[in-house]
Amino acid sequence: MTQLPAINPELDLVLERVVDVPRELVWKAWTTPEHIVKWFTPKPWQTTDCEIDLRPGGVFRTTMLSPEGQSFPNVGCYLEVVPNEKLVWTDALLPGYRPSEKPFFTAYLTLEPEGNGTRYRAIAIHRDSAGKKQHEEMGFHDGWGTVLDQMVAYIKSEM
Amino acid sequence: MTQLPAINPELDLVLERVVDVPRELVWKAWTTPEHIVKWFTPKPWQTTDCEIDLRPGGVFRTTMLSPEGQSFPNVGCYLEVVPNEKLVWTDALLPGYRPSEKPFFTAYLTLEPEGNGTRYRAIAIHRDSAGKKQHEEMGFHDGWGTVLDQMVAYIKSEM
Repeated sequence: MTQLPAINPELDLVLERVVDVPRELVWKAWTTPEHIVKWFTPKPWQTTDCEIDLRPGGVFRTTMLSPEGQSFPNVGCYLEVVPNEKLVWTDALLPGYRPSEKPFFTAYLTLEPEGNGTRYRAIAIHRDSAGKKQHEEMGFHDGWGTVLDQMVAYIKSEM
Repeated sequence: MTQLPAINPELDLVLERVVDVPRELVWKAWTTPEHIVKWFTPKPWQTTDCEIDLRPGGVFRTTMLSPEGQSFPNVGCYLEVVPNEKLVWTDALLPGYRPSEKPFFTAYLTLEPEGNGTRYRAIAIHRDSAGKKQHEEMGFHDGWGTVLDQMVAYIKSEM
């Protein structure tokens, strides 16, 4: 079983679901820019750009576009890359491990086979309870749940 | 050759020297608590405690004691662990990749064999030029150079 980080319910948010697509495709959907832009942002938001250098220290950059036409760039740094199993990245570091100006959270994604599908866990690790609360109010559960639905639908129809 | 991060002279500090001890012993000196406490702090400062969980996401904790008797705890998180070659850790993350309150720098240590000795590189990667300047004024070059001398002397006499 994939090793999980120690979860602190005061500081961390967890989305765990079983989805009926194989983990190899979930992995590809999460780690390929041309796939990411198709499902990564809850509609009617869009992901307009994505850059991935899939190794510890490498860049994970996305640009989101609001329905009103405003762009929101996000840049993070991969920490662990275990194909089909585990993907960890953070915005506390820029690519090359440079500490960032605005650390918010580390994302810890694990995939395990379950029947013909995948047990999908997304853990958001925050600095403090204010960060957790902010992420909750931004709609972590709905947002990450919605984009997971979008990803599963995309995998079934396009991959 | 070990892959180095992209160094930005405006933001980063580098100490590079060749030392006449084998890199396997330098690695051990850097990754074993009972060795660390013997050389890690420029005398008359002392390192009174050290905790190491040598894996990505694991803890690197030290406690320094000033000549006046004040304790300074430091805690960081390992990012990359490549035995005898590369050790990367940061104080921008706590163990388990939780973003920290006071990010200051990422340390990127590389060891390469050179003759019977070791090419030793320590790179300090800062968020901004103010961080670099502060680290320089704290005595990065003297400090890291002095403890390297202490480490080499300790390896020759005790390991």
